[in-house]
Amino acid sequence: MSKSKLSAVPIANSLDDLRNVVNGWKAGGKSVMLVPTMGALHEGHLSLVRIARRKADRVVVSIFVNPAQFAPHEDFQEYPREFEGDAAKLAGEQVDLIYAPKPDVMYAPGASTTVQVEALSSQLCGISRPHFFGGVATIVTKLLIQCAPDMAIFGEKDYQQLLVIRALVRDLSLPVEICAGPIIRDKNGLALSSRNAYLTPEQRRTAPMLNRMMLRAADRITEGADISAVLQHTRSELLKSGFDKIDYLEIHDAETLAPVANKITSPARLFAAAWLGQTRLIDNIAL
Amino acid sequence: MSKSKLSAVPIANSLDDLRNVVNGWKAGGKSVMLVPTMGALHEGHLSLVRIARRKADRVVVSIFVNPAQFAPHEDFQEYPREFEGDAAKLAGEQVDLIYAPKPDVMYAPGASTTVQVEALSSQLCGISRPHFFGGVATIVTKLLIQCAPDMAIFGEKDYQQLLVIRALVRDLSLPVEICAGPIIRDKNGLALSSRNAYLTPEQRRTAPMLNRMMLRAADRITEGADISAVLQHTRSELLKSGFDKIDYLEIHDAETLAPVANKITSPARLFAAAWLGQTRLIDNIAL
Repeated sequence: MSKSKLSAVPIANSLDDLRNVVNGWKAGGKSVMLVPTMGALHEGHLSLVRIARRKADRVVVSIFVNPAQFAPHEDFQEYPREFEGDAAKLAGEQVDLIYAPKPDVMYAPGASTTVQVEALSSQLCGISRPHFFGGVATIVTKLLIQCAPDMAIFGEKDYQQLLVIRALVRDLSLPVEICAGPIIRDKNGLALSSRNAYLTPEQRRTAPMLNRMMLRAADRITEGADISAVLQHTRSELLKSGFDKIDYLEIHDAETLAPVANKITSPARLFAAAWLGQTRLIDNIAL
Repeated sequence: MSKSKLSAVPIANSLDDLRNVVNGWKAGGKSVMLVPTMGALHEGHLSLVRIARRKADRVVVSIFVNPAQFAPHEDFQEYPREFEGDAAKLAGEQVDLIYAPKPDVMYAPGASTTVQVEALSSQLCGISRPHFFGGVATIVTKLLIQCAPDMAIFGEKDYQQLLVIRALVRDLSLPVEICAGPIIRDKNGLALSSRNAYLTPEQRRTAPMLNRMMLRAADRITEGADISAVLQHTRSELLKSGFDKIDYLEIHDAETLAPVANKITSPARLFAAAWLGQTRLIDNIAL
């Protein structure tokens, strides 16, 4: 166990340290919530920490940039790492423990076990990022087994990820309650993301158009406009406004992710992924 | 919770029942060992139960015929199911709890999460039974999460399965110690298996040749004979003696399962799978 220079939050780098602390809490009857993150913490993460702080007696924030959820051509190397700043932010939120496992704690030499959630992983982000949900499902299963929290919380920004995690928890009988936190946005509507740090000043001015146009499309669909016409129009407006590529702009069932083509008959969400240069932004809103 | 008519062993059919019992034991400081089975219990299973009885304060035997480890053309429907007889045998071994989950406890409607151990699942039985180890890894992960035992035991008869399970426990950080029990054989050398019940009287007379010829081959290899020549000869002797097909007769590293072609330089085992009619027998011995 160590403490960050800038922080009063204890830091566990090993599984034994994590388990010793958590087992001690549980023996004392305390409830524990895990907030899994890849670091580079922004107000979105901190909003999850605050929900955890209200719901549980003890809050663990894990920080681990998971190589398995990046494809070889993706931004694993460039992904922002700001451990001291993160630790200071978590101290400000009165987090009880930071779990920052060394890479070989998460992936032992020769590790070859993977967890897959087939039904929910093949569409939306699963198409353009086929590695992603396997990597997420494997690391989250492992974090939940390692920490054995009573609850864990994930943001609705990564809505498909949230569903994948709910499914694996149910399917593997993991004894943990999965909570969700709403998307946190800049005043201009841009969903907070660690990847927003990649944006140039000009891209920063374009980025909020994604949410603005999604809201506009949602309004028109709610008013009864033809779904595919609205989505088609919104896609071309996004490209006109400066986005370089649209991976998807689609409506899916909010629980099963079944695609909605013509008519919304159960809770559904509008999902988008779009590129500004080398940066891929995602967003989703309820309809 | 219910009790079998023929048995004094309590039976849990639901996850809540299982967890209530096990949590009670753990709160009282008792150690718990799980013996996962598909029922149709023979002396091989009972030998594992006896090891568990010696090592742990409380012994849980699970009985679940796992559909996910059978391919569509395999013997899931015909696989022997003898619950009352199994329960009576387990009462004789002073087992503390039988966990006999209903199918929807193990596979909730819509379940689509799978666990795979890639490195160890692609050879030997993984070639002729490509579904098998995925099905095993998924169900065993789930049983270990559900029961949360301190220890679990598996037989060396399914040696590759044992390695797959050790790997997933390590890779997913499951807090359980995996124990192994030696192969139990008939006096004539035939490894006990629930599938031996399929054999006709004539096949029963042929079946022990598998182990006998494996022992002979092992002797010759230990004496320095050429490995591939010995294996080639043994394969043709097995076919002559009445086996209908040899899936494999190969030497592999005892830990990594790396194939051994010419020279044994680390602990290795001779593995075999061979068919008598519709029945597939497997065996393995240390070299």
